[in-house]
Amino acid sequence: MELLQSTLQNIKQLNKEVMGKARERVDALCKPPGSLGKLEQIAIQLAGITEKLELDVSNKAVISLAADHGVYEENVSNNPQFVTVMQAIGFAKGFTGVCAIAKAAGAKVVPVDIGIKEDLPKDSGVIVKKVKYGTDNMAKGPAMSRQEAIQAIEVGIEIANEQVKQGVNVLATGEMGICNTTPSSAVLSAFCGCDPAIVTGMGAGVDSLQHKIDVIRRALDINKPNPDDPIDVLAKVGGLELGGMAGVVLGAAANRVPVVVDGFISTVSALIAYKLEPKVKDYIIPSHLSEEPGAKIVNEVLGLEPMLNMNMRLGEGSGAALAFPILDAACSMMNTMTTLEESHQYMLKIMGSQTI
Amino acid sequence: MELLQSTLQNIKQLNKEVMGKARERVDALCKPPGSLGKLEQIAIQLAGITEKLELDVSNKAVISLAADHGVYEENVSNNPQFVTVMQAIGFAKGFTGVCAIAKAAGAKVVPVDIGIKEDLPKDSGVIVKKVKYGTDNMAKGPAMSRQEAIQAIEVGIEIANEQVKQGVNVLATGEMGICNTTPSSAVLSAFCGCDPAIVTGMGAGVDSLQHKIDVIRRALDINKPNPDDPIDVLAKVGGLELGGMAGVVLGAAANRVPVVVDGFISTVSALIAYKLEPKVKDYIIPSHLSEEPGAKIVNEVLGLEPMLNMNMRLGEGSGAALAFPILDAACSMMNTMTTLEESHQYMLKIMGSQTI
Repeated sequence: MELLQSTLQNIKQLNKEVMGKARERVDALCKPPGSLGKLEQIAIQLAGITEKLELDVSNKAVISLAADHGVYEENVSNNPQFVTVMQAIGFAKGFTGVCAIAKAAGAKVVPVDIGIKEDLPKDSGVIVKKVKYGTDNMAKGPAMSRQEAIQAIEVGIEIANEQVKQGVNVLATGEMGICNTTPSSAVLSAFCGCDPAIVTGMGAGVDSLQHKIDVIRRALDINKPNPDDPIDVLAKVGGLELGGMAGVVLGAAANRVPVVVDGFISTVSALIAYKLEPKVKDYIIPSHLSEEPGAKIVNEVLGLEPMLNMNMRLGEGSGAALAFPILDAACSMMNTMTTLEESHQYMLKIMGSQTI
Repeated sequence: MELLQSTLQNIKQLNKEVMGKARERVDALCKPPGSLGKLEQIAIQLAGITEKLELDVSNKAVISLAADHGVYEENVSNNPQFVTVMQAIGFAKGFTGVCAIAKAAGAKVVPVDIGIKEDLPKDSGVIVKKVKYGTDNMAKGPAMSRQEAIQAIEVGIEIANEQVKQGVNVLATGEMGICNTTPSSAVLSAFCGCDPAIVTGMGAGVDSLQHKIDVIRRALDINKPNPDDPIDVLAKVGGLELGGMAGVVLGAAANRVPVVVDGFISTVSALIAYKLEPKVKDYIIPSHLSEEPGAKIVNEVLGLEPMLNMNMRLGEGSGAALAFPILDAACSMMNTMTTLEESHQYMLKIMGSQTI
């Protein structure tokens, strides 16, 4: 609780003065003002986050947190639960989708066991920060205790702190946890007070969508999470990796490091972080719009506009990793373009004043 | 005309057999089938284009063609025409937006003078393939002769051929030409038979949108371009860089090299190429959705779905360069992910069969 409290207190507003200077520079570059759209906004945001005009996101990490879910026993996924541990190890070995995309983007993947239901073999390469051997079945009672929910968030904060200490200057959230769209939809329903039918989709595959919706309704009915208490929502109908990702978002913000959020599950986790401290929003950069129906809603709630339309729904942090090069482009725009005035001067020099 | 004809004849269908094998591999990777969405489609498309399963787009070039427009004298842009030559030289010197974004993506920018209205200084670094010192004013007569239109397309083909010969394995189209949204909207109107008001926007800035629309209407009325004759449309209401970009698209396809199209103007040029040879469509990869109102329409006509929503409207090839890393990610997915079966086997080895 102490780490969470101190982290929340360390989250400050963006530096408006540096942002003003960044905006001046962006507007002075040799292009019609505003013509690079969101690249300009990202550059200004990065300046406000890092308090620097020379932008740098060269040291990138996707934090991919893996955990299991007690609600799996309600038949809310047609994937074997073993896939959680397999993919977590795949993160460490470089086998998986997020690894391939991160590799292309020059980013590393940091795999974390925050609550897989079994022990990993030694030398798996996965960082073990297990809060619990999977959550309990939220359709029968709370997924975890309040203390465990806080601990999960603090694991995410710790990982973010460690990565920043190692020189990472941009983070992304990712996850693995068979059936974790179920708690994600439950958390979003709880916060929005909306019917689970609106925010629930097929995830990685489920035999009956209606059954999945019914299970989420039952979880909400039984647990009655308090939407004004984000820890309560996370504990009752959330997941360990959701807590961990919320912690990564909080930790990034407290370190003044930008954090790219992946698709549906990651963005729901960002919403938990936002409910704990609204200022985190300014540190978040969206990536892609997931195929899950809840994705559009959670982005609207947070006021985020995903930049990539890829029809992706893998999770793992894959969409966030795909957005990293957009940040590189924003930095390159800021760091390498000349101003209109500089271009004019150069032209005067090489072509003579009569041509201008 | 000979180069254009032979190029059109060299454009073949994608290799369906290789695409079938690529789809098999993509579906076998350790992820839910289809969960990487458009990345999967791009990987399969690249396999069909290159006839290889080991994908490679490591040698990237944005061809940025610059030209001036006679219709400028009708007051259809509030930017000084001098910006065309300034930005063309800026392409060569690495000053401009597309250069910054291409640099971040590890791509080169190939600047071409295909019809700037003045001579460039020696050693400008711009490749000079001038067809004409700017087009004529299409509001008073044809923008160029039929022969010049063909020549412009052939310049694009030549440049594409040269780049491929130098080892480039993915091309992108880009442009610079003050007021070139005006001919682009005219070309799109001519092909679609729609009123210019539907496909005309503010471009990089114009005092009166209504006046711009009126000028385009006048150009169409006076010239009566034949929508069934793409060369006629290009000659009468097009531009030299539009012809050049159509040529780059055709040249890429004839060389079995993928080509990423930028925003509105580039996509209109791709439409010219498509009207000359519909098979080029399979070689095209869209990038971003430009802010210009015609962009949505030309993408619909071509059946393209831009992947990036960045509110960009710079042109130059900037949006195409921003999409290059998405292609890298698709290649990395194909080349570095393991299959589900391989992951299972690995897990059996390290965890023992009882756990699976």
